[in-house]
Amino acid sequence: MNGQAGKLWGGRFEGESLQAVEAFTESVSFDNALAFHDIRGSQAHARMLAAQGVISSDDAASIVAGLDQIRGEIERGEFVWRVEREDVHMNIEARLTELVGDAGKRLHTGRSRNDQVALDFRLFVDERLADWARLLKAVIRSFLAQAREHVETLLPGCTHFQPAQPVTLAQHLLAYAWMFSRDIERIEDCRKRVQISPLGAGALAGTTYPLNPLAVAQDLGWERAFANSMDAVSDRDFVLESLFIGSVVMAHLSRLSEEIILWAAPQFGFVTLPDAYATGSSIMPQKKNPDVAELTRGKTGRVYGDLMSLLTTVKGLPMTYNRDLQEDKEPFIDCDRTVSMSLTMAAGMVAALVYKPEPMAAALKKGFLNATELADYLVTKGLPFRDAHEVTGKLVKMAEVRGVGLEDLPLAEMQLQSALIEADVYPVLDCRAAVERRKIPGGPGRASVLHQIATLTALAAE
Amino acid sequence: MNGQAGKLWGGRFEGESLQAVEAFTESVSFDNALAFHDIRGSQAHARMLAAQGVISSDDAASIVAGLDQIRGEIERGEFVWRVEREDVHMNIEARLTELVGDAGKRLHTGRSRNDQVALDFRLFVDERLADWARLLKAVIRSFLAQAREHVETLLPGCTHFQPAQPVTLAQHLLAYAWMFSRDIERIEDCRKRVQISPLGAGALAGTTYPLNPLAVAQDLGWERAFANSMDAVSDRDFVLESLFIGSVVMAHLSRLSEEIILWAAPQFGFVTLPDAYATGSSIMPQKKNPDVAELTRGKTGRVYGDLMSLLTTVKGLPMTYNRDLQEDKEPFIDCDRTVSMSLTMAAGMVAALVYKPEPMAAALKKGFLNATELADYLVTKGLPFRDAHEVTGKLVKMAEVRGVGLEDLPLAEMQLQSALIEADVYPVLDCRAAVERRKIPGGPGRASVLHQIATLTALAAE
Amino acid sequence: MNGQAGKLWGGRFEGESLQAVEAFTESVSFDNALAFHDIRGSQAHARMLAAQGVISSDDAASIVAGLDQIRGEIERGEFVWRVEREDVHMNIEARLTELVGDAGKRLHTGRSRNDQVALDFRLFVDERLADWARLLKAVIRSFLAQAREHVETLLPGCTHFQPAQPVTLAQHLLAYAWMFSRDIERIEDCRKRVQISPLGAGALAGTTYPLNPLAVAQDLGWERAFANSMDAVSDRDFVLESLFIGSVVMAHLSRLSEEIILWAAPQFGFVTLPDAYATGSSIMPQKKNPDVAELTRGKTGRVYGDLMSLLTTVKGLPMTYNRDLQEDKEPFIDCDRTVSMSLTMAAGMVAALVYKPEPMAAALKKGFLNATELADYLVTKGLPFRDAHEVTGKLVKMAEVRGVGLEDLPLAEMQLQSALIEADVYPVLDCRAAVERRKIPGGPGRASVLHQIATLTALAAE
Amino acid sequence: MNGQAGKLWGGRFEGESLQAVEAFTESVSFDNALAFHDIRGSQAHARMLAAQGVISSDDAASIVAGLDQIRGEIERGEFVWRVEREDVHMNIEARLTELVGDAGKRLHTGRSRNDQVALDFRLFVDERLADWARLLKAVIRSFLAQAREHVETLLPGCTHFQPAQPVTLAQHLLAYAWMFSRDIERIEDCRKRVQISPLGAGALAGTTYPLNPLAVAQDLGWERAFANSMDAVSDRDFVLESLFIGSVVMAHLSRLSEEIILWAAPQFGFVTLPDAYATGSSIMPQKKNPDVAELTRGKTGRVYGDLMSLLTTVKGLPMTYNRDLQEDKEPFIDCDRTVSMSLTMAAGMVAALVYKPEPMAAALKKGFLNATELADYLVTKGLPFRDAHEVTGKLVKMAEVRGVGLEDLPLAEMQLQSALIEADVYPVLDCRAAVERRKIPGGPGRASVLHQIATLTALAAE
Repeated sequence: MNGQAGKLWGGRFEGESLQAVEAFTESVSFDNALAFHDIRGSQAHARMLAAQGVISSDDAASIVAGLDQIRGEIERGEFVWRVEREDVHMNIEARLTELVGDAGKRLHTGRSRNDQVALDFRLFVDERLADWARLLKAVIRSFLAQAREHVETLLPGCTHFQPAQPVTLAQHLLAYAWMFSRDIERIEDCRKRVQISPLGAGALAGTTYPLNPLAVAQDLGWERAFANSMDAVSDRDFVLESLFIGSVVMAHLSRLSEEIILWAAPQFGFVTLPDAYATGSSIMPQKKNPDVAELTRGKTGRVYGDLMSLLTTVKGLPMTYNRDLQEDKEPFIDCDRTVSMSLTMAAGMVAALVYKPEPMAAALKKGFLNATELADYLVTKGLPFRDAHEVTGKLVKMAEVRGVGLEDLPLAEMQLQSALIEADVYPVLDCRAAVERRKIPGGPGRASVLHQIATLTALAAE
Repeated sequence: MNGQAGKLWGGRFEGESLQAVEAFTESVSFDNALAFHDIRGSQAHARMLAAQGVISSDDAASIVAGLDQIRGEIERGEFVWRVEREDVHMNIEARLTELVGDAGKRLHTGRSRNDQVALDFRLFVDERLADWARLLKAVIRSFLAQAREHVETLLPGCTHFQPAQPVTLAQHLLAYAWMFSRDIERIEDCRKRVQISPLGAGALAGTTYPLNPLAVAQDLGWERAFANSMDAVSDRDFVLESLFIGSVVMAHLSRLSEEIILWAAPQFGFVTLPDAYATGSSIMPQKKNPDVAELTRGKTGRVYGDLMSLLTTVKGLPMTYNRDLQEDKEPFIDCDRTVSMSLTMAAGMVAALVYKPEPMAAALKKGFLNATELADYLVTKGLPFRDAHEVTGKLVKMAEVRGVGLEDLPLAEMQLQSALIEADVYPVLDCRAAVERRKIPGGPGRASVLHQIATLTALAAE
Repeated sequence: MNGQAGKLWGGRFEGESLQAVEAFTESVSFDNALAFHDIRGSQAHARMLAAQGVISSDDAASIVAGLDQIRGEIERGEFVWRVEREDVHMNIEARLTELVGDAGKRLHTGRSRNDQVALDFRLFVDERLADWARLLKAVIRSFLAQAREHVETLLPGCTHFQPAQPVTLAQHLLAYAWMFSRDIERIEDCRKRVQISPLGAGALAGTTYPLNPLAVAQDLGWERAFANSMDAVSDRDFVLESLFIGSVVMAHLSRLSEEIILWAAPQFGFVTLPDAYATGSSIMPQKKNPDVAELTRGKTGRVYGDLMSLLTTVKGLPMTYNRDLQEDKEPFIDCDRTVSMSLTMAAGMVAALVYKPEPMAAALKKGFLNATELADYLVTKGLPFRDAHEVTGKLVKMAEVRGVGLEDLPLAEMQLQSALIEADVYPVLDCRAAVERRKIPGGPGRASVLHQIATLTALAAE
Repeated sequence: MNGQAGKLWGGRFEGESLQAVEAFTESVSFDNALAFHDIRGSQAHARMLAAQGVISSDDAASIVAGLDQIRGEIERGEFVWRVEREDVHMNIEARLTELVGDAGKRLHTGRSRNDQVALDFRLFVDERLADWARLLKAVIRSFLAQAREHVETLLPGCTHFQPAQPVTLAQHLLAYAWMFSRDIERIEDCRKRVQISPLGAGALAGTTYPLNPLAVAQDLGWERAFANSMDAVSDRDFVLESLFIGSVVMAHLSRLSEEIILWAAPQFGFVTLPDAYATGSSIMPQKKNPDVAELTRGKTGRVYGDLMSLLTTVKGLPMTYNRDLQEDKEPFIDCDRTVSMSLTMAAGMVAALVYKPEPMAAALKKGFLNATELADYLVTKGLPFRDAHEVTGKLVKMAEVRGVGLEDLPLAEMQLQSALIEADVYPVLDCRAAVERRKIPGGPGRASVLHQIATLTALAAE
């Protein structure tokens, strides 16, 4: 009856479809990225099996050697991946059995594809997170190198993208360094939850073999094994958390990219892009398109999408392993590729940017960036803050009408607005002095900036 | 100064980074999917240039022939893609100039990469949307084939995943067909906005050549050319809309997949999966894992992520073209691959599913699925609806206590609850009759179902 | 046993929890926004019931009059919403029965909460979409008013946020108008799918009453009734599509907002913000924070989130109605509030912006915006495009070194690069002439702009 | 000129718009949730100002007392919130000045709205995260109470939603407890990054007053103050991280909810819903709709949407504070409300569920859940794993054909497939024994389960 239905519906489609099932379900085209992790995990498993007396020492030795040989084949590009062997695990196991015979067949003892893939993926994610941290440190070092050069460089600090108060360029750049340092913190916290070996959880219910999960974990350099076998095979929190960390890294990079793009526009001219990170136009040689910054900003969406992808996939999944979870790898691999490349770009680009103090100084002149100084001055003279605000507003308006700066107003006229103003107001209105007067820890002044540099230098050491 | 900064920061990284810039910015690894569309667009452009007298007819003929030759090279796998030529457009243009000399150099007259890529991508998206519509029709035809077989098959219709009222399996399956028919409608609406040629918009400001944008559009089978050159090069709404349509297609497929997975569980047994769409277990031959349905459900997140990706990318972009927009292609290509494969799977799988009327009939017996019939019966006898509800509730409770169906309660006892109940209540309580009594257009009864099948058959014809 | 478990776990929590269930499941706190739509739908249902002879004409008249009275009570703020009556439907029906007795109880005949809520929500969404279209037209009219004033105003057209070619401000502003016109198109397409009455679908399986679904649809001003009862109660595509449309509207507004924020910065000064749409600082009167534009840009995420919310909710839901779907309303209500307010802001703000031609003209001088003109000039003289590019590049470099514009280079020196250059090159290099030479339909020149204004004026008429 | 444009465009709209600006920009309607945190922060600020000699001790005492009085007014519902005072901070400060005069005006010394709102929001988020942890512990305790009752209860463990191996219900329930314990871990890690006082960062550049940021932090019970003033006012990572944690909590709850919904269906009958967490139907009293579980599952999308909302908002924001960031609060408040209510529901519902061992036992009988046991038995006898798999497959097929279990096959027939099978195979095939043989730490057996319960009990203590 249904066969007929299928027939009515048409043989052409059925063929097209059957052919596609293999392409639809295979994973080896992307999970071969986990090949070395699969080998490491299998070697640890084999050693543990032997230590527990489940397989012989000879078998374990054959397995370890065979897997070493396979690693070499992969490194040398000699390994033949077969889609009909479906995934990375079956490809390697089949090749192992070709190489070492029955010992190879014993490798899978007490193990299931479910706990095996969970382990491999944890090894992979852990390695990539470590690399992100390494790259983040490189980005921070680039900021530090620039900051050291620009402790004295002043520019307008903005809120609402409007000039507000003078700051040092070093302080501005270090703000980014601190952002990225938080990403490193999050990576460290996450890795505690990645470094848990699920091996021994089996398909979902453990195994009857006298395995030693903790020994496998320790062989891999980790401290913890799974607490619950059913959770172990269905938990993908560690991937979600990594995708989230990647999303915040990209959010940070998108802010940096936006600034580079804006500052490189002729209206700002605060920064000159190194040739390597820009595209010229053959027709307009003065034009440098900030392509790397633009692409980085654009790729932010991609990593957000990867996060949303897996969050959606795990929504509403019943216990325990469901094939839906195969969709955990591609988002992470895409995220990793994007984050790693973007951080590599940022580390190089930030170091190579040429910041231009002159346009920054010129921008500082306009904009009454010392208005807050005047208000604070009045408060120190005893005026309540909100009243000091009002007096300052009137004086700024007066200066604006005359087309001069606050520092150019005669004392007598200032005193008409408030008798508290005296000759000692003029040094207060100097932008450099204004910055240096902000002695608060974490502020834009020299001492704070040097302290930040020292702290971050230690934190970002290779 | 900054050079030194770069140096301090370290040569190792700089090298790593510079090497990566090419990999970071190139697009030929994915935009070569647009090769044939680029060729079609360029041929139309060349013909228009000649018709307008901008280039000679001989040049146009050389270009068209050269591009035909390139198409052949690509089809035969002979074309050599070069990453250093950055994107699909430069690869093809460079090859064209090798083949036809100066005429090739004249192809780009009055054109910019910005309007060229917009056209190519519109041609690509339009073609893929047409293919989605074709596949959606195939899915609908699969449902229709099954529905024709199951006009009489009854099963419990559920709300809150709890049995509520009896329906026909045909009605249930047609509900999916209607969902997918809406996807086709959305595709048709969207294509009106895709089929607009941007060629002639140039980089952003049009061109001084006397081009004829409408002629290019018509050469490509479209009716409209761009209305505003700046909008033309920065508009990616058509991609967003396509990604959204893909997301809803996947949402629909995820609902279908969920149902297949649940119905294939032994507790339901409402459906048997064809071998081609399930994975057996070598150890448990009775076990059929519904992998294709699970993967389809899992891939839903992927397409949602693609949509979120581009929505994020376009957020806050200033006018007009920004390199961020290069990130429009991979999400769509991934979405297209996922949607096309998932629909292909669904068309095949739905046709090949074996629905099992017996377990459905058994499920129908439990659950008082005729309670609504009784309430409606009472209303026709004059009782207000809310009162009829109450009486029915009491009778169901009575039947439940006795472990029988409503149809098994003696008339006298029913009448204790309401004197309006008479012997004619029993035929009312028959499930098949209940379904047939729902003569409302769009209801689950035979006439409605056959009418739906006829309508959908016309709509989904190849 | 489990009771004991509950007890062990603690009475305090149980109390907290039970109290919260009502708050967790109620919807009247937000679905009372649908009150008038519920009344309209119920009145149409009552009239149809009477026309079909299911209830008496007197009952129908009582119901319609009672609902009119309730509408008045709500409008006058006299209606008492009761959370224990759970949702808007039960609140109104209970009040109706208070007012008109048994006739009120008959209103729900042949209707279920499932089809009722679907109808009410469709009426609500349809009304809101119509209002979005009205607001979008107002935004377009604001752009048109500005464009009419700035047909002659020139500014640098940008790609990669770098100046590229001169354009008219009118052309730039019209690019936005066209974006918003696409949003109107999408709304019109979507409303075809919103305006389908689900009444008569019942809980999921239709009804045994001889209802006339099409009559209800027509009474409400719509043309179509549901095709399949199970689809009718579980379809939320129309909400998804509306949320998507809202997302694209916000994406467009985010681009506009970004530009306003950048152009209002002192480095650009291309626009002055009207006081009503900016926040001053009491201390820096010259500072105008573009708060409305910033908030609009920020709220983009909110509507994207609303879309992602409902996409996630419907993922993997089995047939038919599930209570999860109650989560369809708040995302849409939030989206509607955000989109409506943001469009209202934009319509007012765009009309009130003061664009500053002088800074735009100054920006035009820098940047060799006439380089493309020179290249095109060379092509018209017979040079292949790519060669013309190269010659222009050399001349721009020469001008840059001398700190002059291309138009300031002596003819003799130009001719050293290409003998094709003659005295007629100078008028070609004038920016205004350059724009006007772009006679292509959709280009930035006067004729194209006036044509666009005429088309959009008709489209955006109230 | 533009005035005229505005006029042409129409006064009606302008009025509508101006009225809406206040509604568009105000935040007091939602940020009044931060009132108590604002008061705590201001009191700490005042005490520090006095300790540093910036204001007098008398002023500080007046401020602290005035704020205490305001807290009382708010608690008693007497405080009048004024939208024209825009936000929670201005409302409270204005009232303070009414109460204590000039001292109130001095409170804002050395502080800006930017660092003030960042502090208040950190205090709020920190408090809410602590409450989530409290609720997560309650959920875990509910699982523990159930697990203690069901150490011996067996049910089919599933992969691919197909029965795979027998497990204990305790193990199954503890898998959820472990998921939620990870959420607590993430909260603890995140709070380290929330508990950083930004006070003293000022608008963006610190302040000239001799403030002591660390003293404020310690007064609030925290250990760290900001490291960089510009980062301090623009950092919203802590909100993103909290939204992510909330998203994973909801993902976990969605899995639990899905299971409850499926298990409550008559086909499973594994669980009976307590009345308080289900909705009956007046017409079908046996029907219990799992509304609370459905709504929880549905609300998952909402929190995902909140996360996506803020991720989008921060994308591409230039330094430092931008008004876009006002959009950080509503997503978190919505997330907090949803997560808190959903966890409260879960804690109560899980404790009150009645798990049904009988249907679970019945489900266990079907499905050859002991097939893995047989394979493992053969491996212990020396057969390579893959070979053991094959033999088992043949025996299962034989049993299936006969309609019996593996345990019902005669020994002689088994031995035809493998001579390694002996009489000791039968005890191996018992499900309870099978579970108990899984002595692996983290497995489903009694010892492992009791160990898990002990560990989690300590972790989840109030």
